[in-house]
Amino acid sequence: MNRANLPVQGSPHTVSRHRFASGGRRASMDERIREHAETLVDWSARIEAGDNVVVSVGEGAHDLAVAVGEVLGDRGANLTTVYSSEEVQRAYLRAHDGEFDEDPINELSLYENSDSVLSLGGGRNTAATADVPAERSQRFSRARQGIREASLDTDWVSTVHPTRSLAQEAGMAYEAYEDFVYDATLRDWEALADEMAQLKDILDDGEEVRIVNEGTDLTLFIDGRTAVNSAASVAYDSHNLPSGEVFTAPYDTAGVVTFDVPMTIRGRDVRDVKLTFKDGVVVDWEAAQGADVIDEVIQTDGGSRELGELGIGMNRGIDRPTGRILFDEKMAGTVHLALGRAYDACLPEGESGNDSAVHVDLITDMTGDSRLEVDGEVIEGDVVPAFEDGGSHEVRVVMG
Amino acid sequence: MNRANLPVQGSPHTVSRHRFASGGRRASMDERIREHAETLVDWSARIEAGDNVVVSVGEGAHDLAVAVGEVLGDRGANLTTVYSSEEVQRAYLRAHDGEFDEDPINELSLYENSDSVLSLGGGRNTAATADVPAERSQRFSRARQGIREASLDTDWVSTVHPTRSLAQEAGMAYEAYEDFVYDATLRDWEALADEMAQLKDILDDGEEVRIVNEGTDLTLFIDGRTAVNSAASVAYDSHNLPSGEVFTAPYDTAGVVTFDVPMTIRGRDVRDVKLTFKDGVVVDWEAAQGADVIDEVIQTDGGSRELGELGIGMNRGIDRPTGRILFDEKMAGTVHLALGRAYDACLPEGESGNDSAVHVDLITDMTGDSRLEVDGEVIEGDVVPAFEDGGSHEVRVVMG
Repeated sequence: MNRANLPVQGSPHTVSRHRFASGGRRASMDERIREHAETLVDWSARIEAGDNVVVSVGEGAHDLAVAVGEVLGDRGANLTTVYSSEEVQRAYLRAHDGEFDEDPINELSLYENSDSVLSLGGGRNTAATADVPAERSQRFSRARQGIREASLDTDWVSTVHPTRSLAQEAGMAYEAYEDFVYDATLRDWEALADEMAQLKDILDDGEEVRIVNEGTDLTLFIDGRTAVNSAASVAYDSHNLPSGEVFTAPYDTAGVVTFDVPMTIRGRDVRDVKLTFKDGVVVDWEAAQGADVIDEVIQTDGGSRELGELGIGMNRGIDRPTGRILFDEKMAGTVHLALGRAYDACLPEGESGNDSAVHVDLITDMTGDSRLEVDGEVIEGDVVPAFEDGGSHEVRVVMG
Repeated sequence: MNRANLPVQGSPHTVSRHRFASGGRRASMDERIREHAETLVDWSARIEAGDNVVVSVGEGAHDLAVAVGEVLGDRGANLTTVYSSEEVQRAYLRAHDGEFDEDPINELSLYENSDSVLSLGGGRNTAATADVPAERSQRFSRARQGIREASLDTDWVSTVHPTRSLAQEAGMAYEAYEDFVYDATLRDWEALADEMAQLKDILDDGEEVRIVNEGTDLTLFIDGRTAVNSAASVAYDSHNLPSGEVFTAPYDTAGVVTFDVPMTIRGRDVRDVKLTFKDGVVVDWEAAQGADVIDEVIQTDGGSRELGELGIGMNRGIDRPTGRILFDEKMAGTVHLALGRAYDACLPEGESGNDSAVHVDLITDMTGDSRLEVDGEVIEGDVVPAFEDGGSHEVRVVMG
């Protein structure tokens, strides 16, 4: 970065992160946002001079957008900023008659000709689209499948800027939430990638996974599938910042699973979803809260009744669920399963896995009396050294 | 609009505009924003079902973007929202080394495949880019000429949402500024178009224009050029909302002109610019304030030394200069001239007029002892009936 041209508002450039985290000074805050932007552009998206980059800016993500703009300018990338406003989206969808044109060519060609799409989440109201009819949203989503595919074909990365709305969702004070986000995001990604490589090897060599937990006894097949060492970088087929999970694409799921980690899906609270699978397909489902959202999701299309992902959280910077999947599914000590679309990276070359317009993750806490088996062998904490210091929970699973 | 789906917060739909203007109730405010959006989409841009529409949203224009999203949804148009943030732009430009790629294909194809571009101005700080080196901005502007052309080839319309920053620029209280913007914008455009048609006819038939004012004696040729009846609609080759001007593309300008209306150009105050023309080209220039900005503009390229526009303000809803060209140049009682690019609509079919990367308007107040002549005949107030009630000023010019 060409520091000569950067405004720094009186703070030194080289103060340590501890000083940022402990201080409440404005200059510290700015520096964490800049570090976030640098991590996103350099580590995560691997952006180089001449890349065509779309930055999608949430309503509350302006400050991060400024920092990302600065880093992209310094790297010599080309910048197009898209406004990703849920309030605009809500107004548009509610007023529309629902007969959406398929993949409007202008937006399609924007993404088809982009090298990277950086999505800066962070809104002002997580319930902003709560009164959009579900069927309208689904039709819109289906009509834009080509645009979504084009976007996913780029070196895309999703991240979030901490906002008061997200702090509220997490049940946290704003400054505490900022600390949480940056603890999860500004990590030593290279070191974590090395740790996670061990779990990836186990999954790559494995054929059958069994998950046993309270209300859960589920078997999934992963033979022939490739696990992703999701180290928050496209260089690792990983598209979330933060990340810190190892995931693969299962098939032929059978049994029952209960997701006890509280979640917010499409702006609505979801609790204790219980899914029953037979021959890979959901045959029964219930939930203590938010069953209507789960109905919506499952009934989207054929692929939304099957699993697209089995993921194991490995990010120790994430110490609690906050109602936001980007963080929750990475939490050390949890396993998540996603209904819907599988990631191509997990599949044999040229083969396509479960296809769907949706990809909705659900999470189960594995820190209690539970176990994760691969081909009959319990994954112990000492197989993945990073998790030996897992705290007071019984160490019977990788995340123990 | 499918009102059944619209949230109205308890207000009736059919209250009159006077009630909106006089009341301070929140519901009234919302209704003016919605009326603004409807005027923009229907009257100005003539958007129809299936049109691909880019909406460019300024940092402070969110509320208008929501209303525009609603109207576009109701009309069945396709919506892509771009974030037009001056702070992101500043950060990007300052960090960049200045070697910009020409017309990045992703953004170029977005605009090449769009039917309309609606630019919703309204920022939070008119000086947001004041410390971007002028040369950097110029290079960026030149590198994106193709993108700009593609955008101008659509049914584009520029408007602004009233923000506190713009109120400050205008030296006005916020609510008073809102009233000002909506008085200028929510007009009977069809009636004004009929009035302006008379002035257009005079200019279309004319060969030579002479402007005489304090510090001004300027001759411009308009033979063969076609005036635009700028009635805030693409149906009239008019791309500003508000509009309310008649303009054409002059050539072979000679003489001296002083622009006494205070202006803000690129975030900097400009006062009493005086330009001397010979054979159509600026040969000498000075300014009481902001001479450096005028230097920048004039030295952009070859075309920035010549005039691209002669315009006559006809919008009686605009009763004072506010430092924002979108409004100021339309003010009844003023004439403006623009350095730089001419609009194709003023030129004979297939002929291109003055070309430049810039188009910078400067304004002179004609309400004093001044006159506007076309082929030696003074344009009197009674030629354009709309301006007979021009107030206490001497009625010697069209705007009198």
